[in-house]
Order: sequence, then structure tokens, then C-alpha cells
Amino acid sequence: MNETNDVFSSSTPLNIGIIGFGPFAQFLAKTMIKQGHILFATSRSDHSQLCSQLGVKFFKEMDPFLDSNNYDVILISTSILSLSQVLSSIPFHLLRQRTLFVDVLSVKEYPRQLLLQVLPEETDVLCTHPMFGPESGKNGWEGLAFMYEKVRIRNEDTCSRFLQIFRSEGCRMVEMPCEEHDRQAARSQFLTHTIGRVLAEMDIKSTSMDTKGFETLVYLKNDTIKNSFDLYSGLFLHNRFAKQELKNLELAFETVKQNLLNKMTETS
Amino acid sequence: MNETNDVFSSSTPLNIGIIGFGPFAQFLAKTMIKQGHILFATSRSDHSQLCSQLGVKFFKEMDPFLDSNNYDVILISTSILSLSQVLSSIPFHLLRQRTLFVDVLSVKEYPRQLLLQVLPEETDVLCTHPMFGPESGKNGWEGLAFMYEKVRIRNEDTCSRFLQIFRSEGCRMVEMPCEEHDRQAARSQFLTHTIGRVLAEMDIKSTSMDTKGFETLVYLKNDTIKNSFDLYSGLFLHNRFAKQELKNLELAFETVKQNLLNKMTETS
Ligand SMILES: NC(=O)c1ccc[n+]([C@@H]2O[C@H](COP(=O)([O-])OP(=O)(O)OC[C@H]3O[C@@H](n4cnc5c(N)ncnc54)[C@H](OP(=O)(O)O)[C@@H]3O)[C@@H](O)[C@H]2O)c1
Ligand SMILES: NC(=O)c1ccc[n+]([C@@H]2O[C@H](COP(=O)([O-])OP(=O)(O)OC[C@H]3O[C@@H](n4cnc5c(N)ncnc54)[C@H](OP(=O)(O)O)[C@@H]3O)[C@@H](O)[C@H]2O)c1
Repeated sequence: MNETNDVFSSSTPLNIGIIGFGPFAQFLAKTMIKQGHILFATSRSDHSQLCSQLGVKFFKEMDPFLDSNNYDVILISTSILSLSQVLSSIPFHLLRQRTLFVDVLSVKEYPRQLLLQVLPEETDVLCTHPMFGPESGKNGWEGLAFMYEKVRIRNEDTCSRFLQIFRSEGCRMVEMPCEEHDRQAARSQFLTHTIGRVLAEMDIKSTSMDTKGFETLVYLKNDTIKNSFDLYSGLFLHNRFAKQELKNLELAFETVKQNLLNKMTETS
Repeated sequence: MNETNDVFSSSTPLNIGIIGFGPFAQFLAKTMIKQGHILFATSRSDHSQLCSQLGVKFFKEMDPFLDSNNYDVILISTSILSLSQVLSSIPFHLLRQRTLFVDVLSVKEYPRQLLLQVLPEETDVLCTHPMFGPESGKNGWEGLAFMYEKVRIRNEDTCSRFLQIFRSEGCRMVEMPCEEHDRQAARSQFLTHTIGRVLAEMDIKSTSMDTKGFETLVYLKNDTIKNSFDLYSGLFLHNRFAKQELKNLELAFETVKQNLLNKMTETS
């Protein structure tokens, strides 16, 4: 919490290479650029047009992306489901300097394990989860949670300059082991997405007489479905605590239903 | 909407007798008193202490309650489940003048039908549902929905003075048939309460890294369980559209779960 920030280093821009330039990376990039960092990106699809508007240098191929710059940080923002495939396509031998690898996946044990497995030993590893997105963070990041675990950090300076991106926007910085993140996120974020998707499946809509509570559910539904199904299913498939929480939800629903049916028998 | 309000009559206080002085009636009473209306109440339990604090004359027995005053309005605010029993205990012959009966139950076809069945023909009937409560209305009623159906109104003046209580607080006045209310409320309010109770059953709690979406679910859960289980089960037992919506919720959950399991098979 009380890290003393070297004024010089925290104001020096970072060279950040982004792998996977989907909606979330685009959202993060805007703030990083505003702060003066230098951004490069590569992705499965061609995002060169958007990138040129944002001021990000885009590479269609992984080799020139890695080969042409000295990266302080490589940020991995691919979908959870494609992480393994994307990592196996990175030609690490082309890295031109010791680099901090950061991932922002919404599950944490899985990338932690995979990154430690495939990254060259000399790289640093920071696993993070910004607990917000293009919707909840559209009016700034003040007070929003940013979870991270320093998995393998030798260059504290680069790591601290990277975290400063979020700290300086007012994020609530939560340092926590990846396992604990997944345990809590299964009960909170995965559950929230599940309820949002159930409501979307029911196709709920505002009425002329919404209660406050129902209004919040309509918002929740609308926000949830802006996220890809890949993201949602990633929360389930690669968080080992999610399956149990899905069961808990089902059981809780059964209990509530049974309470209603009991009351029905009782009063009839 | 464009009712012309007789300045004199809309500012004349109403004599309002409340039957069922539980949490919701207590909440409404505060605003009615603030507006200058004269309140009397009776209830199953003894609320005389609270009533004397509020400035409401409380009667332990139904007979003196009805016998001792000329009521412009009798407001019924008992639980949905007890309505039939409470109505059958009212000695209507003691009514000293033509009175407007208003109910505020959270289901509407059921009290509409019952009131028309048991009330003397000369009484007027207004079925209403203020779509808010002690929690959502604690900072005022501005913009909150107030649903009503003029079921049998001959004395328009009293009815309009009663509606003015809510209109003057800034409520969104929604005139709607009771049947349509129940159809919509089953998909909105009953669904919201069900999700709140499911989350309560799961015992969800704030964490250090809540997303905005999860935060709203924690609020929803906390608000929902402040309502009695009688209220919730009333929404289910006496709204004929609720059963189908409970099924729809179950089916939607099954679909979402199946989508996850399909993705699992697909990616394994
Ligand atoms: N959205 C949020 O609110 C949020 C918040 C916190 C963390 N995150 C995390 O951030 C990451 C990105 O999320 P997102 O919202 O942008 O959506 P997403 O659907 O989770 O991921 C989209 C990204 O994954 C890439 N991708 C998908 N399939 C691929 C494949 N088979 N091979 C190579 N690349 C593939 C896409 O590349 P192309 O665009 O080039 O096709 C795109 O860059 C995810 O891990 C997510 O969990 C998201
Ligand atoms: N709470 C809300 O936000 C809200 C909003 C809109 C409409 N409503 C409606 O307002 C009404 C009152 O709601 P509430 O929140 O106060 O809680 P509730 O649990 O629905 O009803 C409590 C009231 O019902 C009475 N009651 C319960 N069982 C009874 C019985 N067997 N015999 C006689 N009286 C009985 C209680 O009397 P005693 O207190 O004397 O025991 C109390 O006055 C309900 O119809 C509800 O649907 C509530």
C-alpha cells in the first residue's frame, strides 16, 4: 500500500505490447495512451484501422510484433478459452529484453499456471484482474477493484510502474493469491454473469411500473450480455470453483421453490 | 393525467382508517401525516405505542375502530395471505358513511375480486399498488411508480384526493387493469424477489473485489429479505401468472447451464 514511487520512474512511459486486442484491451488502451505510455498490439483479427485511430502500432503477425520493439511489458488480453493456443504461438526467442508479462484474464489460477509453464524463466510474471470493464468503467476507474498477484517479480520498478497505471486512476488495489481470487470470483462475478444470462434468456424488459429492484436487474442483464459468451464460458471452464457455485445456485433455487410449494400446501 | 384538482378539496385532510398496521402501512402513514391527513388504525397485533408516537389513533378492536369515525377512506394493508380472513372480520354494518376502500396489496386481481365480493355495494373501490417500500422509498417517492385501477368509483372527489397523496410526492401514476398489473408484476417484481431470495439462500456476501454488478446483487438480496416471507409467498400464491414465471426462470437457468456444458464438451 505504501510503496514509495520513484518520481522519475513512475512518470517514464512504458513500452507496452498487447496480445489480443479485443473489447477489453481497447478499453484499457485508451487510458494507457492518455497516461502517455507507448502501445503496440497484435491480435488474431486485423485491428489496424482502430489502432491507427487510437495511436497504437498494430502488427498482423506475431514475429514482427515481438522482433521490432523493446517491451517493458507484454499484456495478454486474449479470451480465456484461447489463452493456451495464443501462448503456444509466441516466438519467445525473439524477445529483445527481459520483459514483464501481465495477463488480465477474468480467471487467475489457470493463466498463472500456464504462464509459469510456457514463459522463459528470465521473464517476470504479474497476474491481474481489473474487476471492471467498458460498461462499469466508462465513467472512470475511481474506487473500482484491481486484483493482482506478483507471481514472479524481480524487476520491482517495472511492476510498480505498471500497477501505477491503475493506482493513479483511483482503483482499489487488491493484492491476493490467484487461488483466493478464483474462489471469491466464482461466488461473485461468475454468479452475477450467470444471473444476467438467465435474465437475458428470459428476455426480461422494463415495464411502466418497474420497482427499483427490477430496474437493477434489467441493467445487470443489459451489461452482462455485452460480454462475449467466450468470456462467460471461460469463467466456468477455467475456474475450478465455478462448477460448485453453479450447483449451489441450483440448490438455492430448489430450496426457494420448495418453500413456496410448502406454503401452498399449508394454506390450501 | 390531467385531472383538474379542486384546490379546496385537494387540500382538505382526509379521515383515513388503516386496517393492518404492519411495516408498509407504517411507512405510508408517515407521509400521510406529514401531508395533514387524520389517521386511525387497527391491526391484529397491538401497535398502540408506535401509533401514539406517530400521531395515529389506534384501536385494538375492529368494532370501535369502525364505529367511532366517519371515514373518507379505509386503507387495507394486511398481508396478502390474511386478506380473506381480515375482510371477513369487518363489521361493515357499522360504517357510518359511504367510504372509499383502497387496498395496497402487491397482487391485484385477487383483492379486486374479493373486495367486490364482500364489500357493501354502496362503497367505492380503488385497487392500488405503490411499487416501492420502506427501502426503495426511504429518500422520497419522486419518480417511483404508483399503479392503480378505479374499480368502482362514484365519489370522484375522494378518490382523486386520495391519489393526490401519491401524485403530490412525485410518484409516476400508472393507471392499469389489475390483470395487466399481475401479468407484468409476475415477470418483474416476483422474479426480483425470487432472485433476491435465491441469493439470500446462497448467503452471498460482499468481498474485497466486488464488481459493480455483484454489488447490485448484494443490495438486492439485503433489500429483499427485509420483506416478510408472507409477502413473498403471497406474490406467488395469489398471482396466477407467477407459477409460469417460476417455470420460465427454471427453464432459462437450465438453458444457460446446458450452454456451459455444451461448451465444455466442445472444448474438451
Ligand atoms: N470485458 C471485460 O469487462 C473484462 C474485464 C476484465 C477482464 N477481462 C478479460 O480480458 C480478456 C479479453 O476480454 P474481452 O472482453 O476483450 O473479450 P473475450 O471474448 O474474452 O476475448 C476477446 C479477445 O480474445 C481474442 N481471441 C478469441 N479467440 C481467439 C482465438 N481462437 N485465437 C486468438 N485470439 C482469440 C480476440 O482476438 P480478436 O479480437 O483479434 O479476434 C480478442 O482479442 C479476457 O480474458 C477477459 O476475461 C475482460
Ligand atoms: N413492504 C412493501 O414494500 C410493500 C410495498 C407495496 C405493497 N405492499 C403490500 O402491503 C401489505 C403489507 O405489507 P407489509 O410489508 O406490511 O408486510 P406483510 O407481511 O405483507 O403484512 C403485514 C401485515 O399483515 C397483517 N397480518 C398478517 N397476518 C395476519 C393475520 N393472520 N390476521 C390479521 N392480520 C395479519 C399484519 O398485522 P400485525 O402487524 O398487526 O401483526 C401486518 O399489518 C401487503 O399486502 C403487501 O403486499 C408492501
